[in-house]
Amino acid sequence: MDRTELATEKEAEESHRQDSVSLLTFILLLTLTILTIWLFKHRRVRFLHETGLAMIYGLIVGVILRYGTPSTSGHDKPFSCSQEDRPFTTLLVNVSGKFFEYTLKGEISPGKIHNVEQNDMLRKVTFDPEVFFNILLPPIIFHAGYSLKKRHFFRNLGSILAYAFLGTAVSCFIIGNLMYGVVKLMKLVGQLSDKFYYTDCLLFGAIISATDPVTVLAIFNELHADVDLYALLFGESVLNDAVAIVLSSSIVAYQPTGENTHAFDAAAFFKSVGVFLGIFSGSFMMGAVTGVVTFTKLHCFPLLETALFFLMSWSTFLLAEACGFTGVVAVLFCGITQAHYTYNNLSVESRSRTKQLFEVLHFLAENFIFSYMGLALFTFQKHIFSPVFIIGAFIAIFFGRAAHIYPLSFLLNLGRRHKISWNFQHMMMFSGLRGAMAFALAIRDTATYSHQMMFSTTLLIVFFTVWIVGGGTTPMLSWLNIRSVCNCVLGKLHFSGGYCDGPDSERRNRTKQESAWLFRLWYSFDHNYLKPILTHSGPPLTTTLPSWCGLVARCLTSPQVYDNQEQLREEDSDFILNDGDLTVTYGDTTITANGSSGPHTATTSLDGRRTKSSSEEALEHDVGAADHEVTSRGTRLVFPLEDNA
Amino acid sequence: MDRTELATEKEAEESHRQDSVSLLTFILLLTLTILTIWLFKHRRVRFLHETGLAMIYGLIVGVILRYGTPSTSGHDKPFSCSQEDRPFTTLLVNVSGKFFEYTLKGEISPGKIHNVEQNDMLRKVTFDPEVFFNILLPPIIFHAGYSLKKRHFFRNLGSILAYAFLGTAVSCFIIGNLMYGVVKLMKLVGQLSDKFYYTDCLLFGAIISATDPVTVLAIFNELHADVDLYALLFGESVLNDAVAIVLSSSIVAYQPTGENTHAFDAAAFFKSVGVFLGIFSGSFMMGAVTGVVTFTKLHCFPLLETALFFLMSWSTFLLAEACGFTGVVAVLFCGITQAHYTYNNLSVESRSRTKQLFEVLHFLAENFIFSYMGLALFTFQKHIFSPVFIIGAFIAIFFGRAAHIYPLSFLLNLGRRHKISWNFQHMMMFSGLRGAMAFALAIRDTATYSHQMMFSTTLLIVFFTVWIVGGGTTPMLSWLNIRSVCNCVLGKLHFSGGYCDGPDSERRNRTKQESAWLFRLWYSFDHNYLKPILTHSGPPLTTTLPSWCGLVARCLTSPQVYDNQEQLREEDSDFILNDGDLTVTYGDTTITANGSSGPHTATTSLDGRRTKSSSEEALEHDVGAADHEVTSRGTRLVFPLEDNA
Repeated sequence: MDRTELATEKEAEESHRQDSVSLLTFILLLTLTILTIWLFKHRRVRFLHETGLAMIYGLIVGVILRYGTPSTSGHDKPFSCSQEDRPFTTLLVNVSGKFFEYTLKGEISPGKIHNVEQNDMLRKVTFDPEVFFNILLPPIIFHAGYSLKKRHFFRNLGSILAYAFLGTAVSCFIIGNLMYGVVKLMKLVGQLSDKFYYTDCLLFGAIISATDPVTVLAIFNELHADVDLYALLFGESVLNDAVAIVLSSSIVAYQPTGENTHAFDAAAFFKSVGVFLGIFSGSFMMGAVTGVVTFTKLHCFPLLETALFFLMSWSTFLLAEACGFTGVVAVLFCGITQAHYTYNNLSVESRSRTKQLFEVLHFLAENFIFSYMGLALFTFQKHIFSPVFIIGAFIAIFFGRAAHIYPLSFLLNLGRRHKISWNFQHMMMFSGLRGAMAFALAIRDTATYSHQMMFSTTLLIVFFTVWIVGGGTTPMLSWLNIRSVCNCVLGKLHFSGGYCDGPDSERRNRTKQESAWLFRLWYSFDHNYLKPILTHSGPPLTTTLPSWCGLVARCLTSPQVYDNQEQLREEDSDFILNDGDLTVTYGDTTITANGSSGPHTATTSLDGRRTKSSSEEALEHDVGAADHEVTSRGTRLVFPLEDNA
Repeated sequence: MDRTELATEKEAEESHRQDSVSLLTFILLLTLTILTIWLFKHRRVRFLHETGLAMIYGLIVGVILRYGTPSTSGHDKPFSCSQEDRPFTTLLVNVSGKFFEYTLKGEISPGKIHNVEQNDMLRKVTFDPEVFFNILLPPIIFHAGYSLKKRHFFRNLGSILAYAFLGTAVSCFIIGNLMYGVVKLMKLVGQLSDKFYYTDCLLFGAIISATDPVTVLAIFNELHADVDLYALLFGESVLNDAVAIVLSSSIVAYQPTGENTHAFDAAAFFKSVGVFLGIFSGSFMMGAVTGVVTFTKLHCFPLLETALFFLMSWSTFLLAEACGFTGVVAVLFCGITQAHYTYNNLSVESRSRTKQLFEVLHFLAENFIFSYMGLALFTFQKHIFSPVFIIGAFIAIFFGRAAHIYPLSFLLNLGRRHKISWNFQHMMMFSGLRGAMAFALAIRDTATYSHQMMFSTTLLIVFFTVWIVGGGTTPMLSWLNIRSVCNCVLGKLHFSGGYCDGPDSERRNRTKQESAWLFRLWYSFDHNYLKPILTHSGPPLTTTLPSWCGLVARCLTSPQVYDNQEQLREEDSDFILNDGDLTVTYGDTTITANGSSGPHTATTSLDGRRTKSSSEEALEHDVGAADHEVTSRGTRLVFPLEDNA
């Protein structure tokens, strides 16, 4: 082994050591965040959410890395070689008789070449943007889908779809146009030094339209605020992430032909719309199908079941990516479908295992992204902060959100029996935080001047909205007079299910009447046909299908259905309430909503008093049990609330 | 956007698609393995372990990838450039005015350059060897440490350490020398075309000395074979992984000075020994210290607790790597320490969460490695199979194992009161399987001819031992007449704790007398001083320390200790039995060893009848309860065994 080899080895070792240190930095950040969250929960501090906290710690470490570490020159020097007109993905370089393989990392803009001799540590803590899309976002989005409050979600499905699709499109278009005005202005004043096309503005609109009210929802959970508002906000934010990501891909795909680039071109526009519809429906189908396919029968082996569940969710992502669809969107719908069907087929232990597994993954990924954001403000090398652009962007997102929340709510209220009140509309307007998805979309491509400016602006918008809006949620809720549904005091660990009878039974009747027709239609179809086929429960198809389908019905119905028939009505309502996470936590402490506490098993229903036979009755039963969900949600992490009016 | 950019983008997209497909291949493999395992468990097939199965599926997919996919040329052509005498880690290449960044991937031996134009898919499914060390091995090794049967482990600590340290060193030395003979022979016959030094032979000895009896232990678990044998085998295999990995690093570090390379040099030898001791003790200390430090107080928030636990374990790994120690070894000792101290501080839910989390990670990582091994037989591009070397290696590992098991057992039996019988020695000899660690060590460096030959041989040895030895364990056990300890028939789910009174109480007395003095000494120190400081339980230090230490004792004792004092004696014995995984599985089904079934909580002890006050009594109590562990282990995945005599 000669000196050269030794030197190379030493260098590789040093690089490995630095990799470890940089990862260790992030783990330190997360550990600090966790400890502080614990302190905050303990002291009941609610003005700063954990994600806001993660960003602050990230900022601090970013400053230290930026100004505290020495700037080493590294061994990378500009190296000029004539090649063909296109870079190879792999290079073989002959160094005094030995061949070394190099892989393409990316293009560097000519103006930045002297910057390459930069701080080694800063480069080490900068991740490949694809890490966010392929590793960190999937668990977050899957968890969102898997823990969607299905009952309320489906009850408000129409409104949620309207906000998510129409709303995001409107917001994207308005922000894009406003920003184009800002860019024109900047060109006039001479503040813009490089190209900034109309498509870039639209892309910015798409990126910044992905809302992420994680902070607001966490506070809703703790304060047990209105369930419908929760469902609207959560459903909108989950789906508009999917819309925003596909929208940005279709804007990137918008490439007018001919010389007249970056102007409007009808053919290219329709191609983009086609791309949007194709990717979205493809991802949706793929997610839904794989979600349905993973109905397992490995009841006796929770470890195998959990591993299989995890692998199938991940393969949905990869399959979608391999087919050219969007993995994140597929994973979202996979999560929703799995929660609805596969969850029913899992054994009791696997239910808790999968919930807990994805909860931890989601928690770590989310806090990682937010602390990375804090770090990126100082460690990212190509920031371009333009005050005019930033102020313009803040104004644009304000108008963009206002321009879809209020008009859409007005239109929806025409059709809704349970109107979205002004206070709710203000709250939705206020809750338009930007988070992980906007960041991931913005960092994906920072090659050009315009994209770098968009990235820096997005970062600032995320900081501002998470800190200010997150901290202002509690005052805003009380100012808008959105009271919590049930003021029962929760027991600390032995949750004895407070049952407020007065306002609650009144509410129940009201809610029942207001169930949307879309929900009723979907529910009865799902309950009578889909559930019996896809899960081993529900009424046998032989009873729900017309008699001439007898043979088909018998083939599709699993023999276990007949045994489980009676059981389902309990479990199903239970499931729709999505309180699976509750039954896990307390071992043999039984949680009952009507106050009686007996030796129930973990699948005991929350409200098991009425078991009528028709599905219509089961539906009513579900609606009736709605409020308990609210009171029982969040007991996992929440202390009893004395400050609740 | 011009044509060049578009082409580059297309290529990047294609590469991303291929990445997804290759990952998907592995997920498909794991899914297939899981489904087949389930079938096997269901049908009680025991001749093939899941790891053996994973390898078979890997082989099949490897054949398909090798011969079924078209060989594309790719865009990587030899590209000759004059550079200084040492390759840079980063290259900047100027392609018609645009700069592209390339990173160094590794050296390619001159003879292989035409091979670079290879099958794209084959290259995609070939992972960076460091993936094994940094991602896949840590969860496997941590889980091994975390689930070490502590009581039996510590009772046999002396023997286990002897087998792991002396045994591995002897085995490495003998195999190395025998292989050097084989290599000399091959040179004489003219079968060796390149260099093969003595240090290479020793490295091979170290690599192949890491035993991994995962198959044997799984069968032991199912058949409830002798606990002491189990402890000896498991303890040895866990620790000898650590020894082998550090041994191989020190052999690599053995570089004689001067011209006389690859001959014996006393200075270099002692330097290597120093490196071994330094790395091992450093990693040990680091793991133990971080394991101890992570005692948490986040009782009320299982999610935070679990996340913190996970992060701390991972940071141990990274910290050790950053300091130049061996992360895998540090993680092992971190796992052992955490199971012993931190586990006691966790809330009941976090205990089950952490167990389950690491169980899933371990399961996925292990099966991934084994299916990768199957795949690598066909997809690895630089195999060198030499029949003489392979046959020599099989003979060498046989002698290497025989030469340390029998002499060491003889020496140990001189000191042991509870002798290691001949049958046990034969079983240990037989159980010398090679697995994940040997593979990971061998694939780490395949740059030279000798290392490639070693890698191919290691692969074959792993295949052979896992399939043949794994399949032969059940017949071997019955042939050697190693009967299971307790023949009680286990209930399928409601485990009512069969208590065989006749042979058992007899055994108990015997076992008590045979407890090693090392164990007794350690136990009382641990129980009286370490537990009270590091966990919130145990006798208060004020009672165990001499009176003149009063002030120190009061400072170090947490106030909770006084409350928990009585409780510990139960929990502690329970904990040493390590049946935490049992209490999780069955929710509110209480597991009691003496037949009574009441509403105990999850921390109820297995045998809670006797609670005397002195620690000596508690010790006796532990020893007495030993056998229940055997009967209760493995119920998680095992069906009742009717074929048990």
